[in-house]
Amino acid sequence: MPADLVITGCTALVPGAGGDGGIDFVEDAAVVVRDGVIQAVTSAQDVADLPSAERIDARGQLAMPGFINCHTHSPMVALRGIAEDMAAEEWFNDWIWPMESNLTDPVVELGASLACAEMIRGGVTSFADHYFAMDRVAAAVVASGLRANLGSAFFSSQGAEGRARSVEFALRLRGAAGGRITTSLAPHAPYTVDDADLAATAELAHEHGLPVHIHAAENRAQTDSSLERYGVSPMQVLARAGLLDVNLLIAHGTGIRDEDLAVLQNGSGRIAVATAPRGNLKFGWGTTPIRALRSIGIPVGLATDGAASNNTLDVWESMTLTALVQKSFEADPTWMTARQALDHATRQSARAIGLEGVVGALAAGHRADLILVDLTGPHTRPPHDIAATRVHSARSSDVLTTIVDGRVLMRDRRLLTLDVPAIADELAGQLPELVKRRVGRSVQDYRAEG
Amino acid sequence: MPADLVITGCTALVPGAGGDGGIDFVEDAAVVVRDGVIQAVTSAQDVADLPSAERIDARGQLAMPGFINCHTHSPMVALRGIAEDMAAEEWFNDWIWPMESNLTDPVVELGASLACAEMIRGGVTSFADHYFAMDRVAAAVVASGLRANLGSAFFSSQGAEGRARSVEFALRLRGAAGGRITTSLAPHAPYTVDDADLAATAELAHEHGLPVHIHAAENRAQTDSSLERYGVSPMQVLARAGLLDVNLLIAHGTGIRDEDLAVLQNGSGRIAVATAPRGNLKFGWGTTPIRALRSIGIPVGLATDGAASNNTLDVWESMTLTALVQKSFEADPTWMTARQALDHATRQSARAIGLEGVVGALAAGHRADLILVDLTGPHTRPPHDIAATRVHSARSSDVLTTIVDGRVLMRDRRLLTLDVPAIADELAGQLPELVKRRVGRSVQDYRAEG
Repeated sequence: MPADLVITGCTALVPGAGGDGGIDFVEDAAVVVRDGVIQAVTSAQDVADLPSAERIDARGQLAMPGFINCHTHSPMVALRGIAEDMAAEEWFNDWIWPMESNLTDPVVELGASLACAEMIRGGVTSFADHYFAMDRVAAAVVASGLRANLGSAFFSSQGAEGRARSVEFALRLRGAAGGRITTSLAPHAPYTVDDADLAATAELAHEHGLPVHIHAAENRAQTDSSLERYGVSPMQVLARAGLLDVNLLIAHGTGIRDEDLAVLQNGSGRIAVATAPRGNLKFGWGTTPIRALRSIGIPVGLATDGAASNNTLDVWESMTLTALVQKSFEADPTWMTARQALDHATRQSARAIGLEGVVGALAAGHRADLILVDLTGPHTRPPHDIAATRVHSARSSDVLTTIVDGRVLMRDRRLLTLDVPAIADELAGQLPELVKRRVGRSVQDYRAEG
Repeated sequence: MPADLVITGCTALVPGAGGDGGIDFVEDAAVVVRDGVIQAVTSAQDVADLPSAERIDARGQLAMPGFINCHTHSPMVALRGIAEDMAAEEWFNDWIWPMESNLTDPVVELGASLACAEMIRGGVTSFADHYFAMDRVAAAVVASGLRANLGSAFFSSQGAEGRARSVEFALRLRGAAGGRITTSLAPHAPYTVDDADLAATAELAHEHGLPVHIHAAENRAQTDSSLERYGVSPMQVLARAGLLDVNLLIAHGTGIRDEDLAVLQNGSGRIAVATAPRGNLKFGWGTTPIRALRSIGIPVGLATDGAASNNTLDVWESMTLTALVQKSFEADPTWMTARQALDHATRQSARAIGLEGVVGALAAGHRADLILVDLTGPHTRPPHDIAATRVHSARSSDVLTTIVDGRVLMRDRRLLTLDVPAIADELAGQLPELVKRRVGRSVQDYRAEG
């Protein structure tokens, strides 16, 4: 039986032989895809005579796992650039949360669709989304061809309804889009969801075998405030609620202290953290303590957060910034090497969204989520060190081709599943209503002190 | 007489009416170019019937001044990625300076040519270069069509010869390439050029009306060491040598202290600083104190440093990182707004390389150094705030067309003056000799303690 897709002549980024998170590069490689799965990563010579429905000649290109955006709010691209150069309190209370009270299903779907287009062009093949009206986000996932983990966000201020909707959504959408959609429960944060709701969420996660995706310790001020008010840190709040004993994805974690490491270690769940370095810099928040988390074996995936704070959904940029910012914050240029950054972008990000062994590696048996990247631009020559070139010189615009489940979503930078001008025009018509700020209307209230 | 070039239908980034560094955006604008000079920035309607040798329909594009790379070592792209994830001492002493002893004229010209290709593709129209074998860099400038300020670098360890060569080069090349080349004297740094040589340089600058381009206070350790050893900071060393009384471009200045501000204020020269935020992060060095320098009216231009430390020559990225890193270092999200960052990228960078009023603004009488940038990508929609979109969402790969002195060097991302595959292939043949590290051969010695 012929293969569905054969890619030849590329350099391939593959897992290192040691299995310890190292990576290797194989020259003149070939990738064979059948039924949406990578059947083999072999030599171009090996597949010269292999019949295939589709072949891509990828000489001068790098084949690598697609990027995984481990924490975003995709519909928020509708608010990209609307509230700039301000502190988080003002950003939330005066701009974003009032405007989010104007959200409609069409705006959510258009925003998510534009986000999917941006992510496909940036080489993202999976994303973890945490927002409202998630059926509309799921529709964008279906149409775009991307893979996603989706969670319907809730606050305790919504009463029992928000949590119930989160569970209903997670159970109904689990496994949708031919398995490309997985789901999570999505309480907003310890400062907007009370202890009883957090504990109930942990029980529901156990009962239904669902992971949980939550914001926590987004910045150090939240941690300090939690300690002052309640005598416990956000990590201790999560522990007390039982959330460290389920499969938990913590967004940001910038306020995780050294004292919290033992708390995290005591959890029996599969715990991971998503880091979004751009927004951290922009709010002046410090950054995720990746080195400390590594010391206790907690994977850290790369993320962009929403475009209203982060301005881009460019996970390649998150990788580059993680490498730079980690060196700067630890004042250690030998830390967060290019190869470590690539490990965060691939294996650790796959673990963070619960898909280790499924995506995040060019290896037989993994889903065929991969990208082809141009190696020939002047900005990436000469190729003294291909890992450093990828992390520090190349960028998302070098991605030529994006493939999910063996399906080509972008070929030579041409999007094949989404019509950007049509989406952008339709969204533009919705913006005047979206950006109105009405007295007394807001989805929530943010207190700087958490 | 017909115009040489008319660009129509673009959004134009122009100086604000206040003349205080503000910027404005004009919709449906037109730019008229004659004899390499911007003759008018007007409305598209105004030029509908104007005869012109060449017209560019730039609807859906932003016209803005080209970027200015205020401090680089262009030939060092030949060493891009060769020495990664290490401290500056090891980087200089064990890798870069030994390899630079292998430099040949062909390597310098090929490296500079590849650098010019990268910069044109990134929307850079001018660069300030500080290196060796500068006649070969000048040849690359001539061939590429870029504008440049060139300085022949010297150490006191070279004896009188290095300084003499720097003066001879600066006088001979001043005004070359039809005026596109300006020149500077280029002592390497206070820790590699002794006080007598620095003072002699200041005298030569006065005598010949030449500016000086020098590394100083690259990091805080250099400042602390200078204070400990000599009782004076690098800024005080420059002052004592008379270099603050000439037109001086200081590269990095990351180690400038609050106490140095009065020293800088006492200088009678036109002093500017070039900031290269990427390399600062990568070496864990802190960053240029832009807010303090602004308080005393010292302009700060954007730079990339050489690609061996910075990995890219992408000044757009330097603008983005400057905005992000300044907010983070000052822990103030309201500082370094998108419009401030654009002012650093344009007016302040032009001042830094001594070309204020010549380049850095789309305004009548300025040289026609400009770029056209795509506004239609999904990652830059919707356009709630065009300044924020440019600084935080767009990137150098959105540059479609690059123009210097009215000559189109790249059109719709196609380079018109340089053949990248040929340059890269020829450089590849030179690399085995370049990267040899031979015992006892090095151009200089770096002491961490300055």
